[in-house]
Amino acid sequence: MPKIAHTASIMPESAIRKLTPYADQAKADGIKVYHLNIGAPDIKSPSGAVKALKEFKFDHLPYSNSSGTFALRRAIIEKYYRRIGIDVDIDEMLVTVAGSEALTMVFQAVCDPDDEVLVFEPYYCNYNALALMNRVTIKAVHTDISEGFRIPPVEELEKHVTPRTRAILLCNPGNPTGVLYTKDDLMKIGDLCRRHDIFLVSDEAYREFCYTDEPYLSALQIPGLSQNVILVDSASKRYNLCGARIGCIITHNKDVMGVMTRMAQARLCPPVLGQTVTYGALDADRKYFDAVRKEYIARRDFTHAALNAIPGVFAPLPTGAFYMVAKLPVKSAEDFAKWLLTDFRLDSETVMITPAAPFYNTPGCGLDQARIAYVLEVPELRKALHILEEALKTYKDNIQ
Amino acid sequence: MPKIAHTASIMPESAIRKLTPYADQAKADGIKVYHLNIGAPDIKSPSGAVKALKEFKFDHLPYSNSSGTFALRRAIIEKYYRRIGIDVDIDEMLVTVAGSEALTMVFQAVCDPDDEVLVFEPYYCNYNALALMNRVTIKAVHTDISEGFRIPPVEELEKHVTPRTRAILLCNPGNPTGVLYTKDDLMKIGDLCRRHDIFLVSDEAYREFCYTDEPYLSALQIPGLSQNVILVDSASKRYNLCGARIGCIITHNKDVMGVMTRMAQARLCPPVLGQTVTYGALDADRKYFDAVRKEYIARRDFTHAALNAIPGVFAPLPTGAFYMVAKLPVKSAEDFAKWLLTDFRLDSETVMITPAAPFYNTPGCGLDQARIAYVLEVPELRKALHILEEALKTYKDNIQ
Repeated sequence: MPKIAHTASIMPESAIRKLTPYADQAKADGIKVYHLNIGAPDIKSPSGAVKALKEFKFDHLPYSNSSGTFALRRAIIEKYYRRIGIDVDIDEMLVTVAGSEALTMVFQAVCDPDDEVLVFEPYYCNYNALALMNRVTIKAVHTDISEGFRIPPVEELEKHVTPRTRAILLCNPGNPTGVLYTKDDLMKIGDLCRRHDIFLVSDEAYREFCYTDEPYLSALQIPGLSQNVILVDSASKRYNLCGARIGCIITHNKDVMGVMTRMAQARLCPPVLGQTVTYGALDADRKYFDAVRKEYIARRDFTHAALNAIPGVFAPLPTGAFYMVAKLPVKSAEDFAKWLLTDFRLDSETVMITPAAPFYNTPGCGLDQARIAYVLEVPELRKALHILEEALKTYKDNIQ
Repeated sequence: MPKIAHTASIMPESAIRKLTPYADQAKADGIKVYHLNIGAPDIKSPSGAVKALKEFKFDHLPYSNSSGTFALRRAIIEKYYRRIGIDVDIDEMLVTVAGSEALTMVFQAVCDPDDEVLVFEPYYCNYNALALMNRVTIKAVHTDISEGFRIPPVEELEKHVTPRTRAILLCNPGNPTGVLYTKDDLMKIGDLCRRHDIFLVSDEAYREFCYTDEPYLSALQIPGLSQNVILVDSASKRYNLCGARIGCIITHNKDVMGVMTRMAQARLCPPVLGQTVTYGALDADRKYFDAVRKEYIARRDFTHAALNAIPGVFAPLPTGAFYMVAKLPVKSAEDFAKWLLTDFRLDSETVMITPAAPFYNTPGCGLDQARIAYVLEVPELRKALHILEEALKTYKDNIQ
């Protein structure tokens, strides 16, 4: 029997999805499962998305331009980026199969095998699989839950730069930490990238989910860094169109855009129907985002208070995205998460959470932490967190 | 300024799309361009596809299962594969972002950097870019236009197998050659794969476009080869849903499917709306395919006769797909193709063809050949081929 490749054989299973079979079994057994495990919110997409699909007529579905339809690219620039004060030319943007493909293209464009990318841990665990598939080495720079995942001084970060470092990859605001980087953070990181002649890859998929009064600073707005910045963006969370599979890459660096355009040609085009609904969603105005933001602040505040009220639980207050990482009074958050699905029921209900260890690169880190996605309405969150509290009381490996 | 990766810097431009700017300019100048250059047919998709999208209601668009929706996978198996006599279990199939992602996953699953894949040349030129992006080396086994691209004896093929060979990649029927492999071809290739313990990757995107009376033999139907075969399939051409970006991988090899499932998780899910229209398209019955096949046979026969009637042109008769490769009486088919777009007009019309050299791996091969996609109706093909004939009369580098 022919053998699979070595690289493929060490591919990690998605930490976010590996508990799914247990959840499916629980549901098959008639148990209601509250999903705090995945970033799949219940918020409505902008009405323009629904309208655009309704009005879309076809008798066959040809390819679009490899870089995305001209109409969509122009709309992203004129209706979205211009409103948030960022100037982009149409040939500085490429529509991708969501953020996942955008990141893959970034890794392929800037890294040869065994090149290194610096990422603050904990970080979005699929970065690992995407990096591995593209033979990129992720070097983690630790941030700690006890310090609210504050990033270390730039001198500390600089110690991790080697001759093989090709980029710093930021998720801002961050999944899973909910950390929003400050202007000062970004200026210092930008300066480091400039001095070391490396790329700054900024995953800004959660840009509209910021809960401070400071204006959001995109990596594209860091002065003097136009040749270093590669922006990864996505319609998935912004418009709750995760299934559309539409994202984009923006960079002023013509070499990067040139090579990515050729990569895009090799896979022909991004999904045409996803482009259609995203085009419609771009009609969303400030009111749409304000309403969503208000809702998430309420959910965040509730979840943060409820989690920290549980004995032995600590979760720093996130300033962005819709996740928080919580330290739980258990030895293994993975065992606990599985046990919730297989053994624990409160009035025929349970809750699903994501163990946080796979979001860390450093072995042994985050074993007692979980990522909580506050993507349900407050009354549902109340029930889910009550279940979590009761579960922690009865869990046998509760370390209290 | 930070530099792009070496691998990325040598990424080829899509041979199929690089002439597009000249075509766009011609159109901007008011010239009608007949597109014989790209596999974007004018055939209607099955009505079920249109109906499925019309009936699709959403207020937000969540992720589907990473492997594709259960409904779609079951429908592909029960409505399509069962009808053509192939048994597949639902966990032996994975829905992909069209054939492009399927091939990427195959390269990543079976090859470590610098491993080799054997392909008969001329072959679909995007295989090169996809292989390069995944650090796979394509080794070409030559087939010749003068022999109708007949594959060499298996002993010849076997000479190209090295310790680094991980797979043979077939496109059956083939793009750009239109060659349909015989049962005898497939048995011998299968035997070679078994003896050398390598994978047989079969790209069967054009399976429904076969013009012989022999029943189609899928690689999945080669006896005793279940652990070696990885099937790449696509809805793009079959249902004329190129823009849906839906394909699939089928393999009975659990190791391969296991690792591909993890890769699929890392990129979250295939496009949900594309899955919806493909699900609807699966209602297409034998009548739909028969009508399409009849139409293509008429187009092929016309194109083949018209091409070979032009002095100095030779094109072997294809038995599948909707392309043929033609030898033209020019030094450089690329220069000629560009000249058609920039300089030649017949009653304000011209024609776009694809130079065939990029479909060859061996330097210097196919320079005077072009790929002709017979994807227009016969009256349009008639006009397009008349333009081609007239153009060859006036082209200055015509070698006659």
